Amino acid sequence: MRHNFGAGPCILPQEVFRQASQAVLDFKDGLSILEISHRTPEFEAVLAEAVKLVKELLNVPEGYSVLFLQGGASLQFAMVPMNLLSEGQTATYLETGVWANKAIKEVKNFGTANVVASSKDANFNYVPKGYSIPEDSAYFHCTSNNTIYGTEMFSLPETKVPVVCDMSSDIMSRVIDVSQYDLIYAGSQKNIGPAGSVLVIVKDEILGKTTNKIPSMLDYKVHIEGGSMYNTPPVFAIYVAMLNLRWLKSKGGVAEIEKENIAKANALYMEIDRNPLFKGTAVVEDRSRMNICFVMENPELEKPFLKFVEENDVEGLKGHRSVGGFRASIYNALPITSVHRLVELMQVFAEKHPK
Amino acid sequence: MRHNFGAGPCILPQEVFRQASQAVLDFKDGLSILEISHRTPEFEAVLAEAVKLVKELLNVPEGYSVLFLQGGASLQFAMVPMNLLSEGQTATYLETGVWANKAIKEVKNFGTANVVASSKDANFNYVPKGYSIPEDSAYFHCTSNNTIYGTEMFSLPETKVPVVCDMSSDIMSRVIDVSQYDLIYAGSQKNIGPAGSVLVIVKDEILGKTTNKIPSMLDYKVHIEGGSMYNTPPVFAIYVAMLNLRWLKSKGGVAEIEKENIAKANALYMEIDRNPLFKGTAVVEDRSRMNICFVMENPELEKPFLKFVEENDVEGLKGHRSVGGFRASIYNALPITSVHRLVELMQVFAEKHPK
Repeated sequence: MRHNFGAGPCILPQEVFRQASQAVLDFKDGLSILEISHRTPEFEAVLAEAVKLVKELLNVPEGYSVLFLQGGASLQFAMVPMNLLSEGQTATYLETGVWANKAIKEVKNFGTANVVASSKDANFNYVPKGYSIPEDSAYFHCTSNNTIYGTEMFSLPETKVPVVCDMSSDIMSRVIDVSQYDLIYAGSQKNIGPAGSVLVIVKDEILGKTTNKIPSMLDYKVHIEGGSMYNTPPVFAIYVAMLNLRWLKSKGGVAEIEKENIAKANALYMEIDRNPLFKGTAVVEDRSRMNICFVMENPELEKPFLKFVEENDVEGLKGHRSVGGFRASIYNALPITSVHRLVELMQVFAEKHPK
Repeated sequence: MRHNFGAGPCILPQEVFRQASQAVLDFKDGLSILEISHRTPEFEAVLAEAVKLVKELLNVPEGYSVLFLQGGASLQFAMVPMNLLSEGQTATYLETGVWANKAIKEVKNFGTANVVASSKDANFNYVPKGYSIPEDSAYFHCTSNNTIYGTEMFSLPETKVPVVCDMSSDIMSRVIDVSQYDLIYAGSQKNIGPAGSVLVIVKDEILGKTTNKIPSMLDYKVHIEGGSMYNTPPVFAIYVAMLNLRWLKSKGGVAEIEKENIAKANALYMEIDRNPLFKGTAVVEDRSRMNICFVMENPELEKPFLKFVEENDVEGLKGHRSVGGFRASIYNALPITSVHRLVELMQVFAEKHPK
């Protein structure tokens, strides 16, 4: 068995792979999921179930629309200001890493981004706090989990302006109060499904106020009216997302998986803190439960350790080049047994390399 | 065996389904194609092979870039003027159906669309000819095949302005001279692969001249620099496209499949013209080889005929509501045996319903 700690696209449940594989051969009456029209009642039912599962699993209140679109979070970086900002307006952004920074850069074509706080000074190893958001901001934008640096934002600042959040890497991993947000987006390829779609949850009443001219495909209202089928949707990506959300529901939903995720993260952080060879890179209070970043006290041991775990069926543990060391991505579908296996390998390696 | 005449997403080769199904279970060392990083050497090889196959199969000259993007042809409707038009400029469009019309509508945010000719007067049952393209146009845009109406454009008008073509439904079905075009785009879900990606072939020298501010994800130059990996690409859609292009190459390439497509189209049009119950809807000289639209002389027989063929394993033959009757989409992967089966059913039905 392989232990896939890759940051994304990432592990999904084995039973989802089996069901998806079967549907590529025969989804309905001998036809593949890849050859059916998106206008068939069968695919319309898939999309409807995926949307219903998102609403159910996240307890989405009335007045919000749930969309499956294309272009990933990166296209959302532009769609957000295009739909929510007007010329001369300012939006407030929290800079917590490379992805937040990319979102900030896309604002310039539509208005001004005010970076209210940044953790750039410490290579983004913490989430800034104690800032205040100007009341005349068109919206406040934040990134709930920073995959590269292993930090996560567990609470929102007090504000009256609309809150927009890039939840690409921790959505569906913990209970959130959707009513605190006005727009949530998340590239699918972590806890939702495979690469090729992006989930958007948007409060209807914030739309339609901009003076920008918006191309149809970039207009949330057009996609809401079209029920995510303004054009041909990414059929297979949505189908697999639906299977994966079904799996999450069968596991007891987000509250249950959150307990499991806390147990997984605690097991690994405990070992990082206990084992004299390793140390975490993010400040303790902002440690992510999805992406656990750590290095070795002796950098010369990093290559041998990586080789050692890879020889033992561990995949994707290499850290991002901007942090170095290791990153264990422990998304919903990663079993706790994989975490325990990694902990064991850290211990075995430490025995072989006494400090 | 089912005969899938659906207009898209549509039939792909059975061996592509088998290979794709297997890769969902085990693409590499026990890992699914859905859980590997797009930055692995294995996926980089897939993308490189897909690009190489496009260049080889279409004989793409030097100086062109080949991209796999997201958002379908519908996002291209906006990306084309965003990248190629500047404020105050005019682009010339040929209106040959609903999709051309949607492309025209997206120009308004960036400049002016001059509709040089239209077949709207005859419900788009022909392709206009004999118009001349103003030399001061930023570009000329046409749609090479009109799925809904069953018309196809087999030659381009003489012009010195850049030519942009939406080839979504006939790319890879016949030999084209790419050097006659400056930008070709095609939603994948006909002859390239499953829904979820769009192919773009663009002459590099036409880019970088607009005064428009372009969001990164909508800028062809950004995607060229990123090698279609500026952000996480739709991994599975590109993988299956690669498999399908490999299949096309193994069949002898585009020239060989074109012969087969001509044989398939001729067999069906011959029966439509011969059988007194049926008649074609497109003018003969503009008849599409991909989407064959026909009605019945007696409209009251259409429901019974559709029921009859559906009982005989024929899928997706119902015509688009704006034309009515029937539409047989006979893309590359549809075997000629399916066409012969349909012809046979038309003959059997005619025997039961003498005129």
